[in-house]
Amino acid sequence: MIKLGIIGYGYWGPNLVRNFFSTKDCLVKSVADARLERLDQLAKIFPSINRLKDAQDIINDADIDAVVIATPVFTHFSLARQALMNGKHVLIEKPLTSSVKEAVELIDLAEKKDALLMVDHTFLYTGAVQKIRQLIDAYELGSVTYLDSTRINLGLFQPDINVLWDLAPHDISILNYLVKEKPYSINATGVTHTKNNIENIAYLTVNYKSGFIAHFNCSWSSPVKIRMMLIGGDKKMVLYNDLEPTEKIKVYDTGYDHKTDEEKKKVLVDYRTGDIYVPKLHTTEALSGMACDFINCIKQNATPVSSYEIGLNVVKILEASDKSIKDGGREVLIN
Amino acid sequence: MIKLGIIGYGYWGPNLVRNFFSTKDCLVKSVADARLERLDQLAKIFPSINRLKDAQDIINDADIDAVVIATPVFTHFSLARQALMNGKHVLIEKPLTSSVKEAVELIDLAEKKDALLMVDHTFLYTGAVQKIRQLIDAYELGSVTYLDSTRINLGLFQPDINVLWDLAPHDISILNYLVKEKPYSINATGVTHTKNNIENIAYLTVNYKSGFIAHFNCSWSSPVKIRMMLIGGDKKMVLYNDLEPTEKIKVYDTGYDHKTDEEKKKVLVDYRTGDIYVPKLHTTEALSGMACDFINCIKQNATPVSSYEIGLNVVKILEASDKSIKDGGREVLIN
Amino acid sequence: MIKLGIIGYGYWGPNLVRNFFSTKDCLVKSVADARLERLDQLAKIFPSINRLKDAQDIINDADIDAVVIATPVFTHFSLARQALMNGKHVLIEKPLTSSVKEAVELIDLAEKKDALLMVDHTFLYTGAVQKIRQLIDAYELGSVTYLDSTRINLGLFQPDINVLWDLAPHDISILNYLVKEKPYSINATGVTHTKNNIENIAYLTVNYKSGFIAHFNCSWSSPVKIRMMLIGGDKKMVLYNDLEPTEKIKVYDTGYDHKTDEEKKKVLVDYRTGDIYVPKLHTTEALSGMACDFINCIKQNATPVSSYEIGLNVVKILEASDKSIKDGGREVLIN
Amino acid sequence: MIKLGIIGYGYWGPNLVRNFFSTKDCLVKSVADARLERLDQLAKIFPSINRLKDAQDIINDADIDAVVIATPVFTHFSLARQALMNGKHVLIEKPLTSSVKEAVELIDLAEKKDALLMVDHTFLYTGAVQKIRQLIDAYELGSVTYLDSTRINLGLFQPDINVLWDLAPHDISILNYLVKEKPYSINATGVTHTKNNIENIAYLTVNYKSGFIAHFNCSWSSPVKIRMMLIGGDKKMVLYNDLEPTEKIKVYDTGYDHKTDEEKKKVLVDYRTGDIYVPKLHTTEALSGMACDFINCIKQNATPVSSYEIGLNVVKILEASDKSIKDGGREVLIN
Repeated sequence: MIKLGIIGYGYWGPNLVRNFFSTKDCLVKSVADARLERLDQLAKIFPSINRLKDAQDIINDADIDAVVIATPVFTHFSLARQALMNGKHVLIEKPLTSSVKEAVELIDLAEKKDALLMVDHTFLYTGAVQKIRQLIDAYELGSVTYLDSTRINLGLFQPDINVLWDLAPHDISILNYLVKEKPYSINATGVTHTKNNIENIAYLTVNYKSGFIAHFNCSWSSPVKIRMMLIGGDKKMVLYNDLEPTEKIKVYDTGYDHKTDEEKKKVLVDYRTGDIYVPKLHTTEALSGMACDFINCIKQNATPVSSYEIGLNVVKILEASDKSIKDGGREVLIN
Repeated sequence: MIKLGIIGYGYWGPNLVRNFFSTKDCLVKSVADARLERLDQLAKIFPSINRLKDAQDIINDADIDAVVIATPVFTHFSLARQALMNGKHVLIEKPLTSSVKEAVELIDLAEKKDALLMVDHTFLYTGAVQKIRQLIDAYELGSVTYLDSTRINLGLFQPDINVLWDLAPHDISILNYLVKEKPYSINATGVTHTKNNIENIAYLTVNYKSGFIAHFNCSWSSPVKIRMMLIGGDKKMVLYNDLEPTEKIKVYDTGYDHKTDEEKKKVLVDYRTGDIYVPKLHTTEALSGMACDFINCIKQNATPVSSYEIGLNVVKILEASDKSIKDGGREVLIN
Repeated sequence: MIKLGIIGYGYWGPNLVRNFFSTKDCLVKSVADARLERLDQLAKIFPSINRLKDAQDIINDADIDAVVIATPVFTHFSLARQALMNGKHVLIEKPLTSSVKEAVELIDLAEKKDALLMVDHTFLYTGAVQKIRQLIDAYELGSVTYLDSTRINLGLFQPDINVLWDLAPHDISILNYLVKEKPYSINATGVTHTKNNIENIAYLTVNYKSGFIAHFNCSWSSPVKIRMMLIGGDKKMVLYNDLEPTEKIKVYDTGYDHKTDEEKKKVLVDYRTGDIYVPKLHTTEALSGMACDFINCIKQNATPVSSYEIGLNVVKILEASDKSIKDGGREVLIN
Repeated sequence: MIKLGIIGYGYWGPNLVRNFFSTKDCLVKSVADARLERLDQLAKIFPSINRLKDAQDIINDADIDAVVIATPVFTHFSLARQALMNGKHVLIEKPLTSSVKEAVELIDLAEKKDALLMVDHTFLYTGAVQKIRQLIDAYELGSVTYLDSTRINLGLFQPDINVLWDLAPHDISILNYLVKEKPYSINATGVTHTKNNIENIAYLTVNYKSGFIAHFNCSWSSPVKIRMMLIGGDKKMVLYNDLEPTEKIKVYDTGYDHKTDEEKKKVLVDYRTGDIYVPKLHTTEALSGMACDFINCIKQNATPVSSYEIGLNVVKILEASDKSIKDGGREVLIN
């Protein structure tokens, strides 16, 4: 039985508590939040859980095996470092940290302490992303050539992180999960319509040596909600519309072949459109899969689907995007 | 009666002929195309029109008042220059020319010859774009803050121009028509999946001093066709979905106000979502409106909606995008 | 403080408990269900509520003011009669009873006992139905001429009631709420694809003396889920798509006027299509509104939106539909 | 070379002329229409065709092999009879005639004269209907259990025929083409909102001895256009949305099996939902396929896809629907 302490009971906290509550071999012992009204909310639904005002009471509780950190990004590093120092396994809400430096330090510490460090990139556990990964692994799409994602809506303007740090972790973690090649560089542009210089609309291109390209369109300022991703292969292509209730993934037997007309020295492209296939997806709640993965990987000393490597790569790209935006959209290398 | 000669009877040619055929005060005298099979096609539908193999026979026909050029982009400049030299009015398919230098030379020549030089940016004549312009002019949207366009499908890979030169002229002309501020700079990224180094996927950001931003997502490699544009204002926002048969324009009474909480020194954002309004649009064929505008402006010595200034601005942005893509996405100023 | 007992903790029970739990001036004292596993479920979420195996323990509890009956239809009459006899207010899940005779008897009993008898026609409390009612009351649609509803999906084949008794109560209650004229007659057709002679697909037409017509298409056998209603008026028309997350109601400024060409003795129809308007709807959970209405009407001795008259009219039409189906679709009068 | 005369150049006439014009082994010699402005329209597009004011000049032209009748329904019988008497092959716009009696007389006459009599049920030649027929023939759907069609929009109120005679021929011909079993009876209801007693909204149920059921919802009074058909089988089900540009047919691997729980004497239903498959359809214009079929069947003395039997069955059901509507929706047998 893994005993859990959860730090932060804000927007995402109730979902975490509910899912860990119904996860096997795991007990949610305590939840900490400085806001009394949040703890009152908790009490109504889960009276059996300890309610704490101070996160330190979780970090220092020798009876707790693992800590879940669901607080603002800028606090992730400090809380996680303390928890790891105290020998606890740590699950952190996405994104992992505010900087690559912090992420690397946490990873080193986790390795040293032989503790599990995991990031909650929930989307990796959806039936949709799992199915796309299967299609790619089975070479059903052929060689994958691009990923194009739009994640926009009238969103909460965050006071401390821009729209890329808020929304793009979902897409970048999916990118990292689906594509094994390492990104070479990124370009980012964006704009702020508030006085605090925090971008509310931003665009990110991720470049790869092979010619693969990824692009992310993120906005808090759209009148309509769109959650759409295209993944192109030279054999087939996938449309992933997360807002579709029952047809999230469509596989298009559509493609084009390239050949060179030697005589005319011209590049010719042969098009092909064919059937469309809408696979049935598993409908287990993604967060439940994530919670199980965390508990199982602690027990079996295994590597989770949402590994710290993916978490680190997400932070690398986000940190580079900050640089690129501030520097007129110039190309920033990812090492 | 304006007598017309049309050079080029390819994909778009039949539409031009059909629309000028039914335009008042205008006679389509001749069509030139080097391909016999295209002229045979023409003969079947419009037996009354002269069929010519050589464009020069139109350019040198003293009886012809105006020339329509619907040939590949790289031929626009030479054909248009000759026609203008011979004192003819000239309508050119988008984009105007292959370079800013050529465009400026044509414009100077047209001014000198007192001839009309116009570009066929057909979309400016649609009910949808006309309506958005009215909404902006009436300050219905408030201050306009962004334009975001996606124009993707499984498209014909052009052998001589990339996907931005092929698809973005539509969007950039709309941008120029809707937003009076001059763009400050652009960034572009893209990728080629063929051996001829011509981008089939590309992304373009247009930056403005005021904080307005425009972004264009263009692709020939999408399994689905999308023609969608968002125009955000601080009072209302517009969704323009060109594939909707009857609801192309939706006006969202949605917005956010910014204020600063002086005590906490924080920026606060007040959200508002309200009704949606779907205005009825005129359904006149856009190309017919364009043809009328060309003929009327010749007769009245007036400036068309799709002026050469818009045509020039489109070429400026496209030329800059070439530079930016080749130079790692760096910011290129627009002067 | 109204003390409640809820009989039946099946599919709908948890929603009832949750909503009454957060309704003011009301206490959910006991829940009865013969199935132990259902009571165990209840205990996990609401440990404070009494769990009873026998409904009689609620009906005979002198401390309980009001009883909510959420059991199979054929048990409604008997349970409700006993509860009313014991002086309790009664809320019954739709449909009210299995027959008009039973419904009338309950209504008479409630009147005699001065108790509130109410049916849970939840849809009447949705923002969508409330808005349509407002539009009709304000004569925005003009004279209402038809209602056409499709409610189909791959649904649970009920073992005791057919698809009309299962799905149509929603639509018929909306019809009764929106249209004041009394129906004149109905026709129904249907088919069973199982061996128990219970229709899984059925069609119902409701005829009115004025020329108003209503039609209901109900199916448990559709591969797609559709929840769509059209309400036509001679000034405007409404499309109500309950599956739309944010645009449930669209008001079309569309209509036609009739005139007679006296000379030609012909009927002419003038068409008109105009703007579309998507009003913002309140998003309070409908069941919460229903629960409040029940409690408030008990306290204030008032008539609820979802009155027993609507409940009775629903049963009248359903009972007539049984007759019509069994008798080859013939017209059955509604008195 | 089959020489054709076309009677009637109204709404559908230009489509017929255009398609027969490009059909092999066929020459459109003459078109007759009493309205001069229609013949002027014809002259602009097809100057080579004879323009006649009087249909008799086609019927009596010994040089003409086949006559296409595209006039109002009430004139079909008289014109077709004369043409058949004169030994000509006849193609009639749907529906075949105004009554079963007339249809039977024409069929007898065609048999006697050894002439082809065919009805233009264009939809039978669409890629969508052809594909559904293939799926049924290959038993992909299993045993077919129902067909449910909605064909509504803000349509032209016809002055001489009601909405079923106007719109349902499409659906009833598809029904006849897909389902080999003969219908047993029908029920129809409807309403008129004009003073000429011609129904503008009507509903039709077609009953079969096997338990198969078909239902048609037709309206000229809908603010939205819907062209949707469901075809259910016990193995798979098809959604046919004719307004979808590229995904007209979706095949759902969805179904339910029935079994009887012998112990509990209950009927149980096992549900299954699986993948969805969107087959690519041929995109040849349906009317072109119809025209080819007519010409080929004349030349080869063969039976067309859109045979007179289907045409007769359509009229049988329409005539019965008139009776049913006038008689309070009662069941009318189809013999």
